[in-house]
Amino acid sequence: MKIGVVGASGYAGGELLRLLSEHPNFEISFIGAHTNAGESITALHPQLIQFEGQQFSAVNVDDLNKCDLVFTALPHGESAKLISQLNEKVKIVDLGADYRLTDKTQWDKYYGGSYAGSWTYGLPELTDHQLITKSKHVASPGCYATAIALSVAPVINQIDSEDIVVVAASGTTGAGRTAKVNLIGSEVMNNLTSYKFGGVHQHTPEIEQILSSISNKSVKISFTPILAPMPRGILATVTAKLITATSAQKLRTVYSDFYDKSKFVSLLTEGQMPMTNSVLGTSNVSMQIALDSHVNRIIISTAIDNLGKGAAGQAIQNANLMCNLAEDAGLKLAGVR
Amino acid sequence: MKIGVVGASGYAGGELLRLLSEHPNFEISFIGAHTNAGESITALHPQLIQFEGQQFSAVNVDDLNKCDLVFTALPHGESAKLISQLNEKVKIVDLGADYRLTDKTQWDKYYGGSYAGSWTYGLPELTDHQLITKSKHVASPGCYATAIALSVAPVINQIDSEDIVVVAASGTTGAGRTAKVNLIGSEVMNNLTSYKFGGVHQHTPEIEQILSSISNKSVKISFTPILAPMPRGILATVTAKLITATSAQKLRTVYSDFYDKSKFVSLLTEGQMPMTNSVLGTSNVSMQIALDSHVNRIIISTAIDNLGKGAAGQAIQNANLMCNLAEDAGLKLAGVR
Amino acid sequence: MKIGVVGASGYAGGELLRLLSEHPNFEISFIGAHTNAGESITALHPQLIQFEGQQFSAVNVDDLNKCDLVFTALPHGESAKLISQLNEKVKIVDLGADYRLTDKTQWDKYYGGSYAGSWTYGLPELTDHQLITKSKHVASPGCYATAIALSVAPVINQIDSEDIVVVAASGTTGAGRTAKVNLIGSEVMNNLTSYKFGGVHQHTPEIEQILSSISNKSVKISFTPILAPMPRGILATVTAKLITATSAQKLRTVYSDFYDKSKFVSLLTEGQMPMTNSVLGTSNVSMQIALDSHVNRIIISTAIDNLGKGAAGQAIQNANLMCNLAEDAGLKLAGVR
Amino acid sequence: MKIGVVGASGYAGGELLRLLSEHPNFEISFIGAHTNAGESITALHPQLIQFEGQQFSAVNVDDLNKCDLVFTALPHGESAKLISQLNEKVKIVDLGADYRLTDKTQWDKYYGGSYAGSWTYGLPELTDHQLITKSKHVASPGCYATAIALSVAPVINQIDSEDIVVVAASGTTGAGRTAKVNLIGSEVMNNLTSYKFGGVHQHTPEIEQILSSISNKSVKISFTPILAPMPRGILATVTAKLITATSAQKLRTVYSDFYDKSKFVSLLTEGQMPMTNSVLGTSNVSMQIALDSHVNRIIISTAIDNLGKGAAGQAIQNANLMCNLAEDAGLKLAGVR
Repeated sequence: MKIGVVGASGYAGGELLRLLSEHPNFEISFIGAHTNAGESITALHPQLIQFEGQQFSAVNVDDLNKCDLVFTALPHGESAKLISQLNEKVKIVDLGADYRLTDKTQWDKYYGGSYAGSWTYGLPELTDHQLITKSKHVASPGCYATAIALSVAPVINQIDSEDIVVVAASGTTGAGRTAKVNLIGSEVMNNLTSYKFGGVHQHTPEIEQILSSISNKSVKISFTPILAPMPRGILATVTAKLITATSAQKLRTVYSDFYDKSKFVSLLTEGQMPMTNSVLGTSNVSMQIALDSHVNRIIISTAIDNLGKGAAGQAIQNANLMCNLAEDAGLKLAGVR
Repeated sequence: MKIGVVGASGYAGGELLRLLSEHPNFEISFIGAHTNAGESITALHPQLIQFEGQQFSAVNVDDLNKCDLVFTALPHGESAKLISQLNEKVKIVDLGADYRLTDKTQWDKYYGGSYAGSWTYGLPELTDHQLITKSKHVASPGCYATAIALSVAPVINQIDSEDIVVVAASGTTGAGRTAKVNLIGSEVMNNLTSYKFGGVHQHTPEIEQILSSISNKSVKISFTPILAPMPRGILATVTAKLITATSAQKLRTVYSDFYDKSKFVSLLTEGQMPMTNSVLGTSNVSMQIALDSHVNRIIISTAIDNLGKGAAGQAIQNANLMCNLAEDAGLKLAGVR
Repeated sequence: MKIGVVGASGYAGGELLRLLSEHPNFEISFIGAHTNAGESITALHPQLIQFEGQQFSAVNVDDLNKCDLVFTALPHGESAKLISQLNEKVKIVDLGADYRLTDKTQWDKYYGGSYAGSWTYGLPELTDHQLITKSKHVASPGCYATAIALSVAPVINQIDSEDIVVVAASGTTGAGRTAKVNLIGSEVMNNLTSYKFGGVHQHTPEIEQILSSISNKSVKISFTPILAPMPRGILATVTAKLITATSAQKLRTVYSDFYDKSKFVSLLTEGQMPMTNSVLGTSNVSMQIALDSHVNRIIISTAIDNLGKGAAGQAIQNANLMCNLAEDAGLKLAGVR
Repeated sequence: MKIGVVGASGYAGGELLRLLSEHPNFEISFIGAHTNAGESITALHPQLIQFEGQQFSAVNVDDLNKCDLVFTALPHGESAKLISQLNEKVKIVDLGADYRLTDKTQWDKYYGGSYAGSWTYGLPELTDHQLITKSKHVASPGCYATAIALSVAPVINQIDSEDIVVVAASGTTGAGRTAKVNLIGSEVMNNLTSYKFGGVHQHTPEIEQILSSISNKSVKISFTPILAPMPRGILATVTAKLITATSAQKLRTVYSDFYDKSKFVSLLTEGQMPMTNSVLGTSNVSMQIALDSHVNRIIISTAIDNLGKGAAGQAIQNANLMCNLAEDAGLKLAGVR
């Protein structure tokens, strides 16, 4: 399979290149970037020495149309512009937000600009695999959305789904490879600070959409994101009121059963807690749950790599399914702590 | 005023020494430690070069009884043992948990061991200053408790006080200067992980107690603590359902008015967010609030220095009041970012 | 004394504001910035809450001429342009490089652009205090230059002064508050990397100049700078061949004697090593030395705060001398670790 | 091939497990630890989810004798005790220091305790591959030794080999997984500090030994190690006087030629600098050189992963050679930045 990567100079793009270059079935045939076109790949991704001597190509439709499958990792609004020009038979996994939302109203509220419509939402633990397999176009979920939706899904019918509270912290690569003063090391080290504060983070509607679609319930999320002093990783703390009588042990069973066949999601042994530094470089999702009977709430703690399961790993998982490969082809790596 | 510090070799102890050595009215006359007695102060606190050549003394009752005021910064259970031997006329500010809880049941549930009774709970923004001023003995609040109680207090009567959700992350000094494998740099850097998960953190009852005492309401907190990859600072995210109709602007007024006369707590300008690295070395409390009408919740983000307002700074604030000094004597320092 | 600060929005500027606001003899009367003029001071320096509600002024000659003393903290080339317009009677401490070098050839080689001449080089431990006191204009040394020159000075006559080897690592604030991709947190955390590699760092000539001026010897430095994953602090490792027979103990005496009267430089007790996190927020210089007889070299390890003794603290030390104040007025603070 | 790992609970042990579990020719058949025997592997190495449900075994000779090859990653002195009990036909790669030094005097000076003799020193870029291939027992080099010896080797005949100056900084995993107060996160973050100061680091003799053995020259190293605020990675800055007339371009050719066939060592393109975060998780060695004609010195900057090429990666490289496999079998991974 010939693979193209567009937006390869960003952090998600770099992680795509790393994973794809070790993938048994995929062959990278196009590595494109916009402002970084012409630059050396290792100048921007010095860890990817297997690309020594190669440059980012300027993005062009002809080369992309020669690919079997293209990953697009671009700022929102950019993917749709490019994709509209591509040949219909090229499979596409979009890592951006352009095709995630089925509701134009939500797009207008959280993103704005031209609404491109929606594709199959590719969160394979929650989305029917058949649907992904049949799709030529898949919208890969956002990093926070992945961690949060996976945390809630098993108990969505046992909680007050209109009052789910989430506080999730991300490493700085989540903010992209962008030269902004508030992202320089001197500002972010030693610092925890919230942003997009007050329920305005753009991943909110996609979380509500996927959880609503699997439960046929109205879902509302209060989500507060935090920037943490580390490059990679997301730790999400999710909590909701239980509306059915249950026990900690029953809840454990619900989660174990729900993710029983999952290649990537695991409920940790009691007493162990998810740690962001244990999932780095992987598509693994570490989860722990508790029942706080004092307030009658379930609490879920979930760690992912925002660039792994939160971006490149999940995009490849989707591509694997779209190409009838094993879901975890090329994704079996252990974490590098 | 002759001041004694017991537990001076720990992180809170070191911050006490730093602040006291620059205090205009207090003179340090006793610096005591247990296992570190006899060691050089600068070997453990190399930043405190004004103590060059001095050693930690072994803790002894005679020397402490010569002090006008003693700060005790010891593991829970230890303060009570020592304090029972001291002369009644020595003023004491205890930075530990021994005298914070009025309810023995809560002590037994969250701490265990012998219950020592309770003292005036010294959170000066919420506790009547007269009460602190009259007290010979004051229990200084826990670091998380300080950040969380201050976040909630202004709106306690406008929220569902039995379902307050808190996720708060602390730097590693909050875990003390202890040689544990899970605290070594190789483990904590690049890592976010929750601990005391499921509503079991021992600061829970003191938060409920102080908020209940100022509101005469039943208060229940769901609190999830997180260890963050930085030495100092706490960022608390607090959210609760609003039970009265209000607006973001009205809520801002509630907070501004509530902390109008506070020397240390400030509601930031709209658009600015609390940052832990902006309060380091101070007793300052940075706060921002939002109304998320989507879920009808108020969200509060609050940053403190766990060793400043969360420990040494607040203990000195209490001592100032107990000694009829200006509340902020010796505490006017700007942050070191 | 009315004080002006130009370039107040940078990191050195912020540290100047912090220290000046607590200085017993100086009153800040002008706070100027270029691109950040009009912005809120606390938006850029959120730790400086004593400046809440104030803005950076546009730099203008009239306001500066009303000051008794002005600190200029600007990129090289910028100070000289501004200063040429100021009234002769305004005292100036320049934190930039414009007036440090006495040799136009060196300026041309390491900086380029118009050469502005040279002022008194204000490294008070090595420069005659009388000279500083008499000067209306003082060039405050570079951060690396300070750490390195202080490390070498006591033994300059006992070493091969033409082959001094230095490797020094700095926190990221040393690179300024600049939006560059290579400075964002995602790039600098977990990373050590050298820059200006191969003897081309612009502090090299000023180190050679000051050491040569105090020894009348030719001095040559091989200096390799490194960017370290922390916001503040410099650790310099300096080594040179000994040309006279000596012992470790004699060398300790040389250093102790040399800095005997220094308010800021201290040779640590044997067995203790300089740590950058112990001098943060101060003008303190921690030093340790060893004689490695295996290679007949003295090795010096020195820690400073690049923004303290390496910038704002030293500039104020110079200003104190120029104003006949105690050298350490306003600079007696303990470190915040 | 059946593989045993002893000392599997430490950081080098964990990295061995990660790499071995993805190795095409090696099968892990014994995972042993001492104090951690009986504990869950993922409790200590939570990133290694492929070992979920397995425990560290107590170290026992019977199980080890069933292995074809055993890796020992133990504190010095411990390997020798264990190895003396093993069957002669079991191949062994020792990651500790016990068998590195050929000179008992050096052992006594830098380590002490019983001297166990010496094995083939397995630094495959400098040691004859035939020698390693023929050896049943190989001593794998120290992490600093690897970075430093590789930096110097190509020019050993063009420099004053008795006056090589090295300053090298390591991440905290280099200090092991040990509960010591000076290693806890609160102490090491924001901090650079030197240790084993004054030419006493125990890797000094092995660096001198290998460089001397390849050059037949007397070699003396002045080596100052530094602890850096990051978990992994070593950046070594190495400099020496040039004794032959040369040019930067000629030196580049010397290095390029020397490492031309190396699978792991690369001289970076001019203008790019080695970064520790670009080699994490790999056996890659990034190198850059400069000629500083001002002082007539060559300067080499070299980055490795202390747990990769500095420990587990190199041990496996040696094992590959000993088993007649491709040198880089199982080691072709790209870095995880």
